[in-house]
Amino acid sequence: MRELAAALPDSTLVTDADVLASLGHDDAEWAPVGRPLAAVRATSADEVQAVVRECAARRIPVVTRGAGTGLSGGANAVDGCLVLDVSRMNRILEIDTENLIAVVQPGVVNNDLKAAVAEHGLWYPPDPASAPWSTIGGNVSTNAGGLCCLKYGVTRDYVLGMEVVMGGPAGEYGSRVRLGRRTTKGVAGYDLTSLFVGSEGTFGVVTEITLKLRPAPVAEPRTVVGAFDSLVAAGAAVALVTSRGLAPAALELLDRACMQAVEDWKHLGIEPGAEAMLLARIDAPGDAGAAEADAMAAAFREAGALWAEQSTDAVEAEALFDVRRLAYPALERLGPVLTEDLCVPRSAVPEMLATIEKIGHRHGVRIATIAHAGDGNLHPLLITEPGDEAARVAAQAAFEELLQAAIAAGGTVTGEHGVGLLKRAGMRDELGPSVLSLQRAVKRTLDPLDLFNPGKVVGED
Amino acid sequence: MRELAAALPDSTLVTDADVLASLGHDDAEWAPVGRPLAAVRATSADEVQAVVRECAARRIPVVTRGAGTGLSGGANAVDGCLVLDVSRMNRILEIDTENLIAVVQPGVVNNDLKAAVAEHGLWYPPDPASAPWSTIGGNVSTNAGGLCCLKYGVTRDYVLGMEVVMGGPAGEYGSRVRLGRRTTKGVAGYDLTSLFVGSEGTFGVVTEITLKLRPAPVAEPRTVVGAFDSLVAAGAAVALVTSRGLAPAALELLDRACMQAVEDWKHLGIEPGAEAMLLARIDAPGDAGAAEADAMAAAFREAGALWAEQSTDAVEAEALFDVRRLAYPALERLGPVLTEDLCVPRSAVPEMLATIEKIGHRHGVRIATIAHAGDGNLHPLLITEPGDEAARVAAQAAFEELLQAAIAAGGTVTGEHGVGLLKRAGMRDELGPSVLSLQRAVKRTLDPLDLFNPGKVVGED
Repeated sequence: MRELAAALPDSTLVTDADVLASLGHDDAEWAPVGRPLAAVRATSADEVQAVVRECAARRIPVVTRGAGTGLSGGANAVDGCLVLDVSRMNRILEIDTENLIAVVQPGVVNNDLKAAVAEHGLWYPPDPASAPWSTIGGNVSTNAGGLCCLKYGVTRDYVLGMEVVMGGPAGEYGSRVRLGRRTTKGVAGYDLTSLFVGSEGTFGVVTEITLKLRPAPVAEPRTVVGAFDSLVAAGAAVALVTSRGLAPAALELLDRACMQAVEDWKHLGIEPGAEAMLLARIDAPGDAGAAEADAMAAAFREAGALWAEQSTDAVEAEALFDVRRLAYPALERLGPVLTEDLCVPRSAVPEMLATIEKIGHRHGVRIATIAHAGDGNLHPLLITEPGDEAARVAAQAAFEELLQAAIAAGGTVTGEHGVGLLKRAGMRDELGPSVLSLQRAVKRTLDPLDLFNPGKVVGED
Repeated sequence: MRELAAALPDSTLVTDADVLASLGHDDAEWAPVGRPLAAVRATSADEVQAVVRECAARRIPVVTRGAGTGLSGGANAVDGCLVLDVSRMNRILEIDTENLIAVVQPGVVNNDLKAAVAEHGLWYPPDPASAPWSTIGGNVSTNAGGLCCLKYGVTRDYVLGMEVVMGGPAGEYGSRVRLGRRTTKGVAGYDLTSLFVGSEGTFGVVTEITLKLRPAPVAEPRTVVGAFDSLVAAGAAVALVTSRGLAPAALELLDRACMQAVEDWKHLGIEPGAEAMLLARIDAPGDAGAAEADAMAAAFREAGALWAEQSTDAVEAEALFDVRRLAYPALERLGPVLTEDLCVPRSAVPEMLATIEKIGHRHGVRIATIAHAGDGNLHPLLITEPGDEAARVAAQAAFEELLQAAIAAGGTVTGEHGVGLLKRAGMRDELGPSVLSLQRAVKRTLDPLDLFNPGKVVGED
């Protein structure tokens, strides 16, 4: 440890047990957490290189973290590791208004980037619910989604290039390489940039990211809200919207349990009669936007909505999306939340919502569901009373059964949160042995020492 | 050979020298072509598996081809290889109108897929100029671009999953694996699908592809055309359009040489006074589309256009884009064409266009330029008289210098055509030794026998 400290003069080496404990895990309830040896709060790519070099020499695993808002345990410490916190590498290095590009350090917070580029009339679309706290480095490592990826794509769609500190075929551990480019198109060599996006820190440490931006939307968005007397009816509305080719910027679903939790907390006066609510945001400008909002409301009604209305008031629309944003913290007040992140073909949404209800009943587990419904990306949230061990066991059984149900429906065990520790078994079932072998071979090739975030994603227990 | 034929009872084994010669190369002028041992016209994934198994056992390299419209020599035979033609695997297996998905065999022609999904009100956007002939398998292997990728993305953005026959860590050679999924989002494991897109057949043989579709556009597109007295002025207009955040569905540039070649061939009465023409297609619906067309014309004028006009007539608009489409075949009538495929940051387009002119003058080489200008993706086309060896040497020198100029401008040596054989040296310069080592390590891992398309992309000479 002293050797390591001597080798890292400018970094902040953390050995205090309480601080270490807080840096040693992300927001995934119930994921296993190991005991780190130490943590480093890096402030530059040079420091990251030094850390990686020293750790490689001593075979100390490196677990990189940003804000720690992950929901799969991807940033959880493993025993004897060094936690490499890059959240202080938080400078926006460049905003290129001519080419619609931003270059950032990994610790830049998503919403801070959004605000900075907005000053230039630009927009960085990916909007995970964690955007006020989560970092671009973390977003890149998990290929974070969000609400607007339905129309505007996920994080991978915005990453043009990156700088990574790694080892293996790139040179000795601690080598710094640049992947990708600054152009919008480019096919010179294999697309390693896309491969590294979503690799959850298992190939190396991302120290810089080149991002594609969009022009800021010009139109005030329209909001269409629909109330339904069952989850399945709301799911049918989602399927109808998809098959009609409507392209909302967001299409979110909340069930009764979510609405109730927000209402109990914030007393917003949410409609009490509905079992599910759909929220659509339409950002097409002008008369096309008006026509799309009409078509959306019509689809809701045809699918059996209790009522469907367009909000013409920005304040009211924002309040509706606030209910969506508040749902997760409102549920967390009730007890530990085990978060699912299933994604199914959109036509399977109604059936999957029914299956979620059935699995909850069968295991006696309270499940609230939020969904990026337009993507088929469902977040059943399993809530237990704090300290109730039997409930916890039941919830874990329900959790695994939900993963199997998603696979059976032609879907995936994780749409946007990443595999981390919690989804490893489900991922293996989803991929099958041949593809798992391919995945592991790629990991071994890029990180032959298994130095970076060992045991995560395709790693062994 | 007899053994191989016995092992492949249902495939069409081709050994006729003339047929072999025609199957042994793509459309890249001047790329080296080896002598294949034989060719197989596969009709099913089972046959592909058998071919790969037998070739692996005998260490016969497998070079896969579709329509052979590639422009980098990626499908050119290497000595002693088996050419695996998958163009007869041309069935559209599924069009899922509920989930906006198509599942196709690799030999399906791009425009045939477009037509088939259009019958269901759907759209497959990627539109390389080769779309009437090129196959989806080839488009996937090169990550083909086209005109509309400016707004709608490249082939990779539409590939959700694929089936591949390969070897290495997936199992014995001839193993069939499924990568990716049918959902719009998914992060279970590394994104091998994106890695395989653009890998030019060097990892295995793609036997099935799952594609994302879009709803067919509802609005009649608007066309804005601008004439400029210099290439650089047209480039300045492109930069202005980008920096203003305008989002045309296509923004194409043609220089005088291209227009003249089309005029000499087709006698369409193309404006003779201009050195360059810009063609913008705007597909935003309703009043927003009208406003965008106005803004586009205004930007052209501000950048110094001789004139800029909106076409309100679909026939006239189509005729203008026909000039664009005819440019390449019109130039090919004049002699062998060496096709560049540079891509630079969009703000660098004016300077790069000036550099292209300078390099042409310096080497005494006739260069015509077409460009997907809105992407910064430039196609300088080097034309020589047939049989003029000195001109050929000069053109090759100019070709390499153009690659270096693109790298110096912060760009890439290939935006959409792929590396194949022609861009290998340029790619190495662009990537540098560390990233090249990474690339080669990935290739070695996925194809340890170097069976698939050896020598291409990151392969040795």
